[in-house]
Amino acid sequence: MQAVVHVAFKKTVLDPQGRTICSTLNNLGHKNVLDVRQGKFFEIEIDPDISQEQAREQIEKVAREVLANPVIEDYSIDWKD
Amino acid sequence: MQAVVHVAFKKTVLDPQGRTICSTLNNLGHKNVLDVRQGKFFEIEIDPDISQEQAREQIEKVAREVLANPVIEDYSIDWKD
Repeated sequence: MQAVVHVAFKKTVLDPQGRTICSTLNNLGHKNVLDVRQGKFFEIEIDPDISQEQAREQIEKVAREVLANPVIEDYSIDWKD
Repeated sequence: MQAVVHVAFKKTVLDPQGRTICSTLNNLGHKNVLDVRQGKFFEIEIDPDISQEQAREQIEKVAREVLANPVIEDYSIDWKD
């Protein structure tokens, strides 16, 4: 069982790294790039012996408490079998 | 038009950051986490006035030449309207 957790700054928070990438791309000639926002993702492999419900609860907790800073970041969780 | 580019180490390349997160999670009591691999993603906003074909070509080039290091990293591109 695999969970993919995406973490990125909230839309209301300035993303200086994304801004820098955007202006670099513009300077390289990619003028059609209007905005870039950067984030991280985590592919988490979970013991298939635990129940799906348990796994979901655990990964929700991990995302909220360890991987993301909920004050300035949003996260989302996708599941693969 | 928005492209989302995911970049992560190839499966054959050791991911020390992912390993560290995995052992940290294990130490925090999340023993069911077997493996973690970390990557980056880029949400790229593209001028909607250019053709889809042009946009695809451009983002493919950006991903390959700027965002990823093809020697050690894989990338994938998803499209949102």
